[in-house]
Amino acid sequence: MKALTYHGPGRRTWGEVPDPVVRDPEDAVVRVDAVTICGTDLHILKGDVPEVTEGRVLGHEAVGTVVDVGPGVRTFAAGDRVLISCISACGRCAYCRQGTYGQCTGGGGWILGHLVDGTQAEYVRTPFADTSLHHLPGGVTDERALLLADILPTSFEVGVRNGRVGPGDTVVIVGAGPIGLAAVTTARLYSPGRIVAVDLAPSRLEAAKRAGADEVLDAATGDDAAIRALSRDGLGADVAIEAVGVPETFELCTRVVRPGGRIANVGVHGRPATLHLEDLWIKNVTITTGLVDTSTTPLLLEMLAAGRLDTDDLVTHRFGLDEMQDAYDVFADAGSNGALKVALFRT
Amino acid sequence: MKALTYHGPGRRTWGEVPDPVVRDPEDAVVRVDAVTICGTDLHILKGDVPEVTEGRVLGHEAVGTVVDVGPGVRTFAAGDRVLISCISACGRCAYCRQGTYGQCTGGGGWILGHLVDGTQAEYVRTPFADTSLHHLPGGVTDERALLLADILPTSFEVGVRNGRVGPGDTVVIVGAGPIGLAAVTTARLYSPGRIVAVDLAPSRLEAAKRAGADEVLDAATGDDAAIRALSRDGLGADVAIEAVGVPETFELCTRVVRPGGRIANVGVHGRPATLHLEDLWIKNVTITTGLVDTSTTPLLLEMLAAGRLDTDDLVTHRFGLDEMQDAYDVFADAGSNGALKVALFRT
Amino acid sequence: MKALTYHGPGRRTWGEVPDPVVRDPEDAVVRVDAVTICGTDLHILKGDVPEVTEGRVLGHEAVGTVVDVGPGVRTFAAGDRVLISCISACGRCAYCRQGTYGQCTGGGGWILGHLVDGTQAEYVRTPFADTSLHHLPGGVTDERALLLADILPTSFEVGVRNGRVGPGDTVVIVGAGPIGLAAVTTARLYSPGRIVAVDLAPSRLEAAKRAGADEVLDAATGDDAAIRALSRDGLGADVAIEAVGVPETFELCTRVVRPGGRIANVGVHGRPATLHLEDLWIKNVTITTGLVDTSTTPLLLEMLAAGRLDTDDLVTHRFGLDEMQDAYDVFADAGSNGALKVALFRT
Amino acid sequence: MKALTYHGPGRRTWGEVPDPVVRDPEDAVVRVDAVTICGTDLHILKGDVPEVTEGRVLGHEAVGTVVDVGPGVRTFAAGDRVLISCISACGRCAYCRQGTYGQCTGGGGWILGHLVDGTQAEYVRTPFADTSLHHLPGGVTDERALLLADILPTSFEVGVRNGRVGPGDTVVIVGAGPIGLAAVTTARLYSPGRIVAVDLAPSRLEAAKRAGADEVLDAATGDDAAIRALSRDGLGADVAIEAVGVPETFELCTRVVRPGGRIANVGVHGRPATLHLEDLWIKNVTITTGLVDTSTTPLLLEMLAAGRLDTDDLVTHRFGLDEMQDAYDVFADAGSNGALKVALFRT
Repeated sequence: MKALTYHGPGRRTWGEVPDPVVRDPEDAVVRVDAVTICGTDLHILKGDVPEVTEGRVLGHEAVGTVVDVGPGVRTFAAGDRVLISCISACGRCAYCRQGTYGQCTGGGGWILGHLVDGTQAEYVRTPFADTSLHHLPGGVTDERALLLADILPTSFEVGVRNGRVGPGDTVVIVGAGPIGLAAVTTARLYSPGRIVAVDLAPSRLEAAKRAGADEVLDAATGDDAAIRALSRDGLGADVAIEAVGVPETFELCTRVVRPGGRIANVGVHGRPATLHLEDLWIKNVTITTGLVDTSTTPLLLEMLAAGRLDTDDLVTHRFGLDEMQDAYDVFADAGSNGALKVALFRT
Repeated sequence: MKALTYHGPGRRTWGEVPDPVVRDPEDAVVRVDAVTICGTDLHILKGDVPEVTEGRVLGHEAVGTVVDVGPGVRTFAAGDRVLISCISACGRCAYCRQGTYGQCTGGGGWILGHLVDGTQAEYVRTPFADTSLHHLPGGVTDERALLLADILPTSFEVGVRNGRVGPGDTVVIVGAGPIGLAAVTTARLYSPGRIVAVDLAPSRLEAAKRAGADEVLDAATGDDAAIRALSRDGLGADVAIEAVGVPETFELCTRVVRPGGRIANVGVHGRPATLHLEDLWIKNVTITTGLVDTSTTPLLLEMLAAGRLDTDDLVTHRFGLDEMQDAYDVFADAGSNGALKVALFRT
Repeated sequence: MKALTYHGPGRRTWGEVPDPVVRDPEDAVVRVDAVTICGTDLHILKGDVPEVTEGRVLGHEAVGTVVDVGPGVRTFAAGDRVLISCISACGRCAYCRQGTYGQCTGGGGWILGHLVDGTQAEYVRTPFADTSLHHLPGGVTDERALLLADILPTSFEVGVRNGRVGPGDTVVIVGAGPIGLAAVTTARLYSPGRIVAVDLAPSRLEAAKRAGADEVLDAATGDDAAIRALSRDGLGADVAIEAVGVPETFELCTRVVRPGGRIANVGVHGRPATLHLEDLWIKNVTITTGLVDTSTTPLLLEMLAAGRLDTDDLVTHRFGLDEMQDAYDVFADAGSNGALKVALFRT
Repeated sequence: MKALTYHGPGRRTWGEVPDPVVRDPEDAVVRVDAVTICGTDLHILKGDVPEVTEGRVLGHEAVGTVVDVGPGVRTFAAGDRVLISCISACGRCAYCRQGTYGQCTGGGGWILGHLVDGTQAEYVRTPFADTSLHHLPGGVTDERALLLADILPTSFEVGVRNGRVGPGDTVVIVGAGPIGLAAVTTARLYSPGRIVAVDLAPSRLEAAKRAGADEVLDAATGDDAAIRALSRDGLGADVAIEAVGVPETFELCTRVVRPGGRIANVGVHGRPATLHLEDLWIKNVTITTGLVDTSTTPLLLEMLAAGRLDTDDLVTHRFGLDEMQDAYDVFADAGSNGALKVALFRT
């Protein structure tokens, strides 16, 4: 089959690799019908994720059709339409038993396109199928479902729910890329009082407005005071969601949160930030970090099927599966072409 | 009356000041029967807290007897034995309405010995008496109650409860001074599996053992690995409580916590710390900070009265009230004399 | 002034009574600009609430303008537009300190129109003004605010929040009178998957649809199975909200809830219900009861002011204040005239 | 092998049955080293549980040694000492994914000795071994571990945790049989202020005292007022735990709980109770029911191994495995012989 493989920093190939097969009783093999590219894949290609070895098929988000299952798989069968989640769950370890699949110590967690071959291919082997795949409700398109493989549950669990967004809250979302926009969408499920999106790119601020942000603020000109001025009594945000992954934006979040507020970090960081404990020790703030668990994926799929979750503006570019290299080029150049998510479809 | 007053960095006086009187309908005036000194008072004397003006009577922890109340005070009367809490609560603002008195925006919060005259005196005026004083149960001695003016609720609320200590948890408490020891004592209320106390001073580690720490570790020789080795499966602490107030100990907490664990900062910090988000973003950690609310003081008083809270080892030195200067000297030199809390009593 | 007074079962008078005055330092006297009648007032008039003595002015819901305050009132002044909450809070007792004002043991709780004179009058004395009145945001009309005196916080706190309604949940609301409709409205703040309203009156089912119910079910023809069929996997409701107050509807709720679900009782009951523990012991259900605390009233006022809470269909009949007797007649005959809430305005 | 089998109401046989074998890839077969009898087994023998068919091997609590595993079992192997939990978990269904294994819809839940052959035998087949068995820590005796198969997690999860027992709480436990005593033991993990045990049998009240109850009350002479008098301010219990399973004791719980309190039903009921909603609607009470999930079994095993959970007084009578019929006779006659739990050991 054809797949996108990694061959050291900066080198990716779209070419022939062996077809995946069931190797463990709990495996499924899935034909990929739609797949996308994540910012993390770009990190891997920079060489920032040394666990990824040469020849690895990348990708951890897809929608597909089961073609084979091992004898230990009970709840999926060939022909089933499935969502392939970015997180696999052994279902047995103490973390999985508590629904924190992202921290699985039994062989799961983020493994696809990282420690085992991933989804940017015609077929993919998915370990622990029963506890890692999700049945697709009828009527949900591949494209819409694809966004639930990673970014929707990530923004919902790690941003909105860790931040405990509630009715009436002022929610500041720093970063209006795909994750930030998904945070706007999922924060709205709790009827916050005001969502303020902060970014540098006018096109992303526009997208944030369309996704439902009540206020948008250009990070180049808006300062802390401008953000706080948008909160109740000017005290600061009830919840600040970091959706960029650099120290500056994290530190911004810690400055604009009110006493008693929550800072939910969603961004993937490569460098340390400065934590101003000399200001924060007295402020009753809660800071959370986390990898998605995808424990809310069934809920999000249900809401998507019921028309209660609007993700339509997140995919900006569409390709055939064998245009993988083009899709990577476009996604890597999002700054100039305004790309949010790119989607590739089996042709 | 006699009082300890601040006169700029390094200058404290024990001398005559005017007697306090009821100035607001909700004030009480309380005769001080027992009082203590807090590390924060030393910070003030270094000049680190610029809001404290010259001539201010210091002190925010005391036990006393009400001598006068304003016409708006309903639940206290002259003759009542009371605990004077470090936190005053207006009882009306949005923060007070949620029990977060430490963040009161209606004129309360930490005001005693800070923004208004405090408790290191023969008498003290206490604003918002109904919502700031606590009736002392019979049978509770002044000395034992005194520890509930600040350090017990602080360690309990900001350390143990923010850190969500639960049965079976591994709790690492960094710093075995008065706050750290009180954290050991109050953490035990939730039956953790193992309490590990970390400090540099052998005398404090001994005190931690007496307070109920299961393991103690000399910070000079024990490293991160040694701490983690004491946790379940070596994954790290479920809860790490910072009870020192310097960047190094905070950063230690972030390194020894397990994925999914909680870091509860209790220490008063003067400098920023480095937050290694490049490691932490994926680890599902929760970091909390906070000023005490004293919302649990009634509960702690009840448990003290019932003999279910052992605070006996925390007071190491006792003085008469007019030995205030000596008491300060001893407390400021805790490093060499092993002082934990000093208590001064009306004579 | 004129007021509606109670004179034993079945006897109400609209006539002259003495003007209220400030009697306690924390009192306010408020001119009533808009007032409504509650089902509880009808209960009182039946003689079901023996604590209500002859001559008592009824009513516990109003919007008005402060005309006088006692010397202990800090946050309200003559001229302020206020919401008069059905619950008064002493602000000092253990229950008030935890925000459960409805259970106040310090002289508050539900006292207006019950233990002290109420709001169905030209003026009303409101005890504990600082902790019991609410400033009205500009732009909120009297009529809309009036619904936040009781029914909105009641349905939100006792129904939606006690029932822990969350995104995607199936919420069955039994009873589509004012409280049930307000439960529909406030449940929507948490983006449930499906709201099912059950009632006997077609007009109320219509109103439920307008308020946002996804499905409505005539209680006369729909059985348990029909309700369960509307839930996820047919397992039953995640949350069942009882908003009638008779044993049959409560028991219905216990039958249609799924294993692990919640039953939130909001109705005021006069008779015991049968609890089928032989079925329920194994089902992991949670049943809650409660009087409103009005702790969420500030939040609801904010959302109302921001246009995020739609209460427009709840008032069906409007009167001048001196048409009080007519308003009672209409409200008491809601079964035939379709009345939900009646509102009376100062003329 | 030998096993205790059911043959219709009142008829049990200890005799030869076929040895169990692995039938499903996720099965284990375990040699029973220690086993006990549950009150539920007596219910089955009365004919109260019609799902139990003739010839069924009874029993759902045991400790044993794995002798065989299916190819899908990853975390257990022949020779492993294990605790056999009363609850089996498929690990895949929505309930299992949330840790509510007792409500498993994928073939688990309470199945042993109910829907499949159970543990009162020389060997037992345990489905879903990876997610249903528990490794025994070294140093834990069979007898102590045996109590964690059902009664300790049941009292802890369904009583103590559903009731949200916390420091300082007044906890009333109605019924001092095995479950009630285990509730006393596990409630103490949260440092309640006072545990009050209520029962009719003096020997059980004595046992409650030994388990750590602060007060015991003979149900024959103590009335509601006597119970309430033992609570803070006489308001009633913070938590009332029903551990009998008859309407009268449940109703007692609803009468002695304070406004805002919790009633946690643990008892297995065969008849409906009367719920006095005319009193309770206004009282802010929370009533919970539930089957144990055994999600806390790993925690309890850890605490047992660490010597932090004292279960020693719960086993009153010991037998060899082939004295099964005698053990049943003794257990069925607990009223006269004071039996709590009986334990049978492989000989």
